[in-house]
Amino acid sequence: MNLKQKVSRRKFVSSAVSASAISVLPGSQQFLREFSGAIRTRALEQNPVPLTTTPAWRDQGILNLAKSPYAKLHSVPVHAVTIEAGFWSLRRETNVNASIPSMGKLLEVNGRMDNFRRLKGKSSAAQRGPVYSDSDIYKWIEAAGFALQSGELPELRTTVDKDIHEIVAAQQADGYLNTYYVQEHAAQRMEPKTQQHGHELYCIGHLLQGGIAYYRATGDRTLLDAGTRFVNEFLVPNFGPGSDKKPLFSGHPEMELALIELYRLTGDKRQLELSGYLLAGDSRIHFKPEDYVYHFCGVPFTSRTHLEGHAVRAMYACCGATDYYLETGDQTYWKTLNVLWKDLVSAQMYVTGGVGSRSDGEAFGDPYELPNARAYGESCAAIGNMMWNWRMLAATGEAKYADVIERALYNGINSGMSLNGALYCYRNPLAFDPSRGDKIRNEWYDTTCCPPNLERTLASLPGYFYSTSDEGVYVHLYDNSQLNWHLENGTGLTIQQKTNYPWEGSVELTVATAEPVEFTLFVRIPGWTDTARVAVNGKAISDAIAGQYLPIRRRWSGDDTVRLQFNMAPQILEANAQVTENNGRAAVQRGPLVYCMEQIDQGEGVALKDVALSADKASSGRFEEKFDNDLLGGVLVLRHAGTVHEESADRSGLYFSHDAAPPKSRPVQLTFIPYYAWANRVQTPMQVWTPVARA
Amino acid sequence: MNLKQKVSRRKFVSSAVSASAISVLPGSQQFLREFSGAIRTRALEQNPVPLTTTPAWRDQGILNLAKSPYAKLHSVPVHAVTIEAGFWSLRRETNVNASIPSMGKLLEVNGRMDNFRRLKGKSSAAQRGPVYSDSDIYKWIEAAGFALQSGELPELRTTVDKDIHEIVAAQQADGYLNTYYVQEHAAQRMEPKTQQHGHELYCIGHLLQGGIAYYRATGDRTLLDAGTRFVNEFLVPNFGPGSDKKPLFSGHPEMELALIELYRLTGDKRQLELSGYLLAGDSRIHFKPEDYVYHFCGVPFTSRTHLEGHAVRAMYACCGATDYYLETGDQTYWKTLNVLWKDLVSAQMYVTGGVGSRSDGEAFGDPYELPNARAYGESCAAIGNMMWNWRMLAATGEAKYADVIERALYNGINSGMSLNGALYCYRNPLAFDPSRGDKIRNEWYDTTCCPPNLERTLASLPGYFYSTSDEGVYVHLYDNSQLNWHLENGTGLTIQQKTNYPWEGSVELTVATAEPVEFTLFVRIPGWTDTARVAVNGKAISDAIAGQYLPIRRRWSGDDTVRLQFNMAPQILEANAQVTENNGRAAVQRGPLVYCMEQIDQGEGVALKDVALSADKASSGRFEEKFDNDLLGGVLVLRHAGTVHEESADRSGLYFSHDAAPPKSRPVQLTFIPYYAWANRVQTPMQVWTPVARA
Repeated sequence: MNLKQKVSRRKFVSSAVSASAISVLPGSQQFLREFSGAIRTRALEQNPVPLTTTPAWRDQGILNLAKSPYAKLHSVPVHAVTIEAGFWSLRRETNVNASIPSMGKLLEVNGRMDNFRRLKGKSSAAQRGPVYSDSDIYKWIEAAGFALQSGELPELRTTVDKDIHEIVAAQQADGYLNTYYVQEHAAQRMEPKTQQHGHELYCIGHLLQGGIAYYRATGDRTLLDAGTRFVNEFLVPNFGPGSDKKPLFSGHPEMELALIELYRLTGDKRQLELSGYLLAGDSRIHFKPEDYVYHFCGVPFTSRTHLEGHAVRAMYACCGATDYYLETGDQTYWKTLNVLWKDLVSAQMYVTGGVGSRSDGEAFGDPYELPNARAYGESCAAIGNMMWNWRMLAATGEAKYADVIERALYNGINSGMSLNGALYCYRNPLAFDPSRGDKIRNEWYDTTCCPPNLERTLASLPGYFYSTSDEGVYVHLYDNSQLNWHLENGTGLTIQQKTNYPWEGSVELTVATAEPVEFTLFVRIPGWTDTARVAVNGKAISDAIAGQYLPIRRRWSGDDTVRLQFNMAPQILEANAQVTENNGRAAVQRGPLVYCMEQIDQGEGVALKDVALSADKASSGRFEEKFDNDLLGGVLVLRHAGTVHEESADRSGLYFSHDAAPPKSRPVQLTFIPYYAWANRVQTPMQVWTPVARA
Repeated sequence: MNLKQKVSRRKFVSSAVSASAISVLPGSQQFLREFSGAIRTRALEQNPVPLTTTPAWRDQGILNLAKSPYAKLHSVPVHAVTIEAGFWSLRRETNVNASIPSMGKLLEVNGRMDNFRRLKGKSSAAQRGPVYSDSDIYKWIEAAGFALQSGELPELRTTVDKDIHEIVAAQQADGYLNTYYVQEHAAQRMEPKTQQHGHELYCIGHLLQGGIAYYRATGDRTLLDAGTRFVNEFLVPNFGPGSDKKPLFSGHPEMELALIELYRLTGDKRQLELSGYLLAGDSRIHFKPEDYVYHFCGVPFTSRTHLEGHAVRAMYACCGATDYYLETGDQTYWKTLNVLWKDLVSAQMYVTGGVGSRSDGEAFGDPYELPNARAYGESCAAIGNMMWNWRMLAATGEAKYADVIERALYNGINSGMSLNGALYCYRNPLAFDPSRGDKIRNEWYDTTCCPPNLERTLASLPGYFYSTSDEGVYVHLYDNSQLNWHLENGTGLTIQQKTNYPWEGSVELTVATAEPVEFTLFVRIPGWTDTARVAVNGKAISDAIAGQYLPIRRRWSGDDTVRLQFNMAPQILEANAQVTENNGRAAVQRGPLVYCMEQIDQGEGVALKDVALSADKASSGRFEEKFDNDLLGGVLVLRHAGTVHEESADRSGLYFSHDAAPPKSRPVQLTFIPYYAWANRVQTPMQVWTPVARA
């Protein structure tokens, strides 16, 4: 059935029901809308939009790039990678066993599902939460979907099935679905002003992502179909460029990437075009110049020259634009994306991979505006950064993007969830003073965007370990794990990773193919290492270059072993002189992990604000390393020489002569823990960047 | 006539007019209000509130502290001090001849006076400007008032007289006066929500200050009487603590200090009590906790423990609280004021005397949150800082307050007005990069609070030079000038200052009394000097201590000469380690002037972001000094050795190893100009704090 037939059928059904229903029922208009909605859902179930089988639903990765013409790399499905006991298994288990279930309960308790039930008369509670509250449910379903892609979780599946049933029941006859712009707010639905802050498209973008992840886990397309109906029946016929259609403003980019992932499933070019239309902006909608900065949409994406405005919006827009490039190869997009990426890594990114330094507007600041204590670094923005770089990596196969993914994942994202999985950071500052009364980790935020975002990211993690290309296989991330997949020519392939990464720099990859076959194994040499040794079956391979993939092209014939050894000596980092807050300061990084100091780990009477790192040539880098199994779930602790002022800075003046004698200091041993593990004990000062002691 | 009689007379007049007017006139209710208002004004003119004659109106200083029981120092009237050719005379002349007249015209052009005329049917223009626009007119009248205290300015006086006439005509029958909360906004008048952001009391506070300054200049009490009516007839009977009265919320502190200055004129204790009531807050009005932070009012002033929230609000609240202390001696206020002052100077004040570092909320930041490029440092807040310290100085006679006044006046306030007097800063950052498109000096702001605030401050400047006490005379500020006044015992006194301050550190004071008399001359030894030599009639006096008044008690008998010599060698300053943006950086100060670098003054190809100051022991402080008559109205230029990176920071990475070779540098001579004079040529980068070159 083509679209024209579908539309006329819908109209017929609606009016037929209308004639009989109005006369017999109280509140019949509302009933009619819901009843005809139910009929529509069934109609779609019976005549679903055809979906790609390249590959089959269960074999589609985080992004299904199988037919994306400008994707150099292609995804490996989540289920193909099993993360085994090691660094990430702890986080993933906590996520699946603690975070996802507890967040599901909190979303219930806080009325987020009642918002849907209310529309069917199944809840008498008032609408709760901000206008974008639907998206939190959808993002949580996406987290559940990724978790289910890794294996059966019957209890979770039952809950999600029930939620999805209640969500789609709330969809209106015309395909619109939102629990806020209904009833008393119905008149504001899709109005230009509402599009600015109402998050209607944003919510449906997350519905689509949730529906797709759940479909790829279970084959159940109920939620996906509801999102498709919103797009195909509500948006496409009524909104868009033509003079007969109303204009759209994305408001909070998200729909852009969701539409393209939908297009990758349906092959329906209208969805790709709608995404391109949102990315280009519609000049018929007028906001203030600063709104186009804040929202990072509404003017052509290709007119952007730097990162600015709301960081999550900007990152999601970049994701959507990269997705658009992956499908179209549009070089103006590619040029803009590269300009923005350069801005990101040369002037806008924290050493933790966090982005968006300003609390005001949750925004990017000026170039090099990267304050520490006042860092915003929203968890969602770091996730957006990772998502964008995942797409840039797919477009190019260049390891510099994987370096950013790793930096964000191990640090600025990983910090966002507490070790017990019950508390979340919204902000991820690089220095902290609890005396201001801030509580950095919380169970619940009324704007609870970050917690389910962290959950979907950790649940999808296996899908980030590998990619394939027509040349072979790329290894992006290192941890104990097993890949069970195949080359693009169909030859079966397993890769077993054995490592104690990120605590140790050695990784053993056992590569086994169903039959002897020549292909290239691209092993990522992290950008942070200064020396990397690689050997295949005990034979050293030269030319490993930090920040690049080392291509190992050979005939793989059975149980071949690749050994990698990265120098993981702790490094003392400085920042560009224009990052004024870090002038004269240093940070410590070991492997992919950025370290920090917490006051609680320092000696009695040693205040963080009074310490300095002794980083002169003689002592610099002489770290003592000790793995502590009992600390923070098991972390490698670093110690390094430093000094502490005998007189606290609290007692010195605000301004004083440079010629004054420097404050007296005494030597002290400073203790560092991985940044991701901070604020998991008591409220205590923390800092990533520490002054370097004067020689 | 006492108040009761007045009120009943008003009622009688109003209703008499009402009966006849309603039947004959269209829009009669409006007419009635205006007509009865006119009658009321005449009534007050005929029966004015008695005003103090201690001293006579023309001899009252900026604050009339003559009868304030807890004032140790007493003001000297503005007219008693004539500033002669020198540093401040240039600024004052520009202010009187350029700034005040041009701002008067801009206020006209932008409809600020039409707002008043509109209410009398003399303008058909719609209300223009933000809700607080009346205050800009009042502040400008205050500037004119102070200018007129120094001498005749017939044209200015004619304009102001006309303005005042039009302002008081807009006062309503019940004493209320505001051009925004009338007509379509009349229902919101003085509602609790309006009190939060409506600035009704704030506007009247400025009306009172303007009316008082104009009265002290001319003896004309028209505007002052309108303000008194607002207080005595509208506020006092209807608002306040009793259960029969409605509660007040100050919203933007200002009324607190204006009420007390009014009380100093009228002796009417109700005005002092109303100020105390505003300072204590009324618990019947409920806002969110963060509102009490932002507004810096509504909860007892004496419950404050640190500076926070909107900086101008906080500074004005501190002014009001100090005024309240000066009248009542309330020790809980005094304790709080000292806690807040310590917070100011130890953790919240820029080296320029600017305060309020955050653009978001125009607010104080956390302790030591003093960013440079992103400094807000609103001109009004620096002025508030000076006003507060003037009151603290009056309470104590301690020079540490005069040090803050001098720092703010010469730097963070003085920077606020361009050298030609036509452009104003709202923000006063300590570093600037014009590539972001910011324009820092502008002729007009729709919120034009700062320009007339700068104008009233410069116009009142002579009143800040001296104070008297029962022991003698205090000398606070140094510039060529003549004092023509008397001791508190009535003995005539002149002091002639001859100096090239702040360019040179020598000051000659010629003290002459009408007859030989013993008193103490308290000469201020600035806190910034390391050595000060003082001699009376050529005979050295010991015990001069920086940051204190040197009391010279003797019998002064005629033309006695006091010579002061302050060491004005340029100093390199550092900031407390907790001011993270200044770690590893230094600022240059010479005498009271903070210096900065502008890119335009450095060598070809020397970018400010790449320079460092060579401040090791060998070269530190070896400044070359040269007075340049043709530069920036005549400034002393400093030069000091520095370095510039051969490779610009723009081209280096965001993060790099501490062990990497430091960037190559070459020596360069750096040029510094006084901070107040920045941004008076072209748009060019500027910075106050410069990295110190590594040894």
